[in-house]
Amino acid sequence: MLAEKEILNALSRVMDPELRRNVVELGMVHDLSVEDGIVSFTLALTTLACPLREEIVEEARKAVLALDGVRDVMISLREMRPEEKARIWPRERRQSQRVGVAAHLNHIDRVLAVMSGKGGVGKSSLAALLAVGMRRRGKRVGVLDADITGPSIPRMFGLHKPPPIGPVGILPVETSTGIRVMSINLLLPKEDEAVIWRGPLISGAIQQFWGDVVWGDLDVLVVDLPPGTSDAALTVMQSIPLNGILLVTSPQDLAGMVVRKAARMAEHLNMPIIGLVENMAYVTCPKCGERIEVFGPSQAVHTAALLGVPVLARLPLDPELARLCDGGQVEQYTNGEVDALAEKVL
Amino acid sequence: MLAEKEILNALSRVMDPELRRNVVELGMVHDLSVEDGIVSFTLALTTLACPLREEIVEEARKAVLALDGVRDVMISLREMRPEEKARIWPRERRQSQRVGVAAHLNHIDRVLAVMSGKGGVGKSSLAALLAVGMRRRGKRVGVLDADITGPSIPRMFGLHKPPPIGPVGILPVETSTGIRVMSINLLLPKEDEAVIWRGPLISGAIQQFWGDVVWGDLDVLVVDLPPGTSDAALTVMQSIPLNGILLVTSPQDLAGMVVRKAARMAEHLNMPIIGLVENMAYVTCPKCGERIEVFGPSQAVHTAALLGVPVLARLPLDPELARLCDGGQVEQYTNGEVDALAEKVL
Repeated sequence: MLAEKEILNALSRVMDPELRRNVVELGMVHDLSVEDGIVSFTLALTTLACPLREEIVEEARKAVLALDGVRDVMISLREMRPEEKARIWPRERRQSQRVGVAAHLNHIDRVLAVMSGKGGVGKSSLAALLAVGMRRRGKRVGVLDADITGPSIPRMFGLHKPPPIGPVGILPVETSTGIRVMSINLLLPKEDEAVIWRGPLISGAIQQFWGDVVWGDLDVLVVDLPPGTSDAALTVMQSIPLNGILLVTSPQDLAGMVVRKAARMAEHLNMPIIGLVENMAYVTCPKCGERIEVFGPSQAVHTAALLGVPVLARLPLDPELARLCDGGQVEQYTNGEVDALAEKVL
Repeated sequence: MLAEKEILNALSRVMDPELRRNVVELGMVHDLSVEDGIVSFTLALTTLACPLREEIVEEARKAVLALDGVRDVMISLREMRPEEKARIWPRERRQSQRVGVAAHLNHIDRVLAVMSGKGGVGKSSLAALLAVGMRRRGKRVGVLDADITGPSIPRMFGLHKPPPIGPVGILPVETSTGIRVMSINLLLPKEDEAVIWRGPLISGAIQQFWGDVVWGDLDVLVVDLPPGTSDAALTVMQSIPLNGILLVTSPQDLAGMVVRKAARMAEHLNMPIIGLVENMAYVTCPKCGERIEVFGPSQAVHTAALLGVPVLARLPLDPELARLCDGGQVEQYTNGEVDALAEKVL
């Protein structure tokens, strides 16, 4: 026979990841009953819009299913009544104040997102180079790596240590020239560990990188977006006050098509595009000096005209940049075109 | 005073998008009460794991909030009891049979996913070339484009017309050599239209491409995955019976790191990796014949050793391939290394 106590005991190992206490302690479990091996109960959540709901329900289901004699679990959900919420309020409130404080302490003049829609066109290296170029001009610069499943910013700057946690939030890690960086890879035990998250968790992480990170006073925050027009891009456009978007493309017409999708998304969400950068435009042969257009002839002018935005730069594929990025020394890269671009963007 | 009838009337405009009937008609609304302008009710869903739950709850909330005199809406959720489900069963069953019929009519010998984690390393062109290579060997081949926000497969094969809809499902579009293709871009009014969807919709589309598409008899179905280890990759690994994953990387160490994330995801989900392909390994100068390693020296052997998988091929960056892909003529590309790879994979 299954005792109620046994079930509650199992459920007490299920945590609400936001409130950081278990669901039994939080008074979330109600109407527990067992009939013929089928366990039913109601979970009362602080809000049904809770992005972590899926996770809590799944954990609860698994915890109970693991008990001997349980054939099935039926979980109902409801929202907590005001008086129930009041009971967990003190702690919850401290949490949301903490979020507010970090965002409140930050004074960020301009937020610039680097976007493409397409992967592998050099968004991250361009975001890094822009930050480096602006830093060289004496600006206070931060980089928010919004690519949660494929973050490459920390590697480019040679950052490996975890960010310090302060009383009001997480502190960004500083590069050798003083650029402040936040990325999921700074928080992982190993840099090649996978982050297998569905959209709501991706969005949650990005929102925390904005609201829970003590960026301090910045002239420019550069946001490096992942490929695609799904959760990450939507969350950045909806919850971070962007001043402009820099689109990155490669000469391939195929890339242009996907970049136009990204541009349309920006339009739909009323985000200003400041210009287009064509990356990987050509390779210069180190032996004979020939310019090889590896991805075909430039489409930048055509794509920019379709979108009604200026072409800000055409950058080559440079093995030296690849080498410095792999070695964590992107700050040592010098290139007149990139410097001119940083100047233009400023 | 708010009448119950008025509220039910408002709720009868909220559809269950899957069952295509409204929530009142489906008997989903229970325990309706109004107190002091606060409307409370319970929605009984067929399953709490319903991917469209968010949407239904939001629609219901909006519909009721729009009524005069409503200050707030409190919605509880529960799963339907078996007898409640039985009531909507006939129609629901026909629906799932429809899904089942297409999946049932399909006889697919092997399903192979092309994955990278990293964007822009040539996943899609490799997926296309593999399909072409296998087709040349007389195989019946399909390509499922699981990149919903950045699909490039139709463009590479020069496909522009919408797929025909048959009595049991959607028919894939055939390329000039008879490869069957399904991609979101075949369904969009314009190929550069953005698909601004969050995860659940992305997952739904991929599941439909598997279960609602009449693939027929295939020797191999190649699934082209987008970058990242979030919704799309998760859905493919969880709902399509993959026989193996082909990992694609570029020589950059940074790419290798992200590819290792994808490999770890495959491990976590118990998916067999059949091997690694290093793409964009070098460019051959058309003038002097020099081999330029634009992304630095090869890391393939190192990455493959870390993952314990074989290196199946090292492919160059070829401007001719970029040109053919842009022009929709990927089937005309010939390359001994790619042919050897197709042979190896078979």
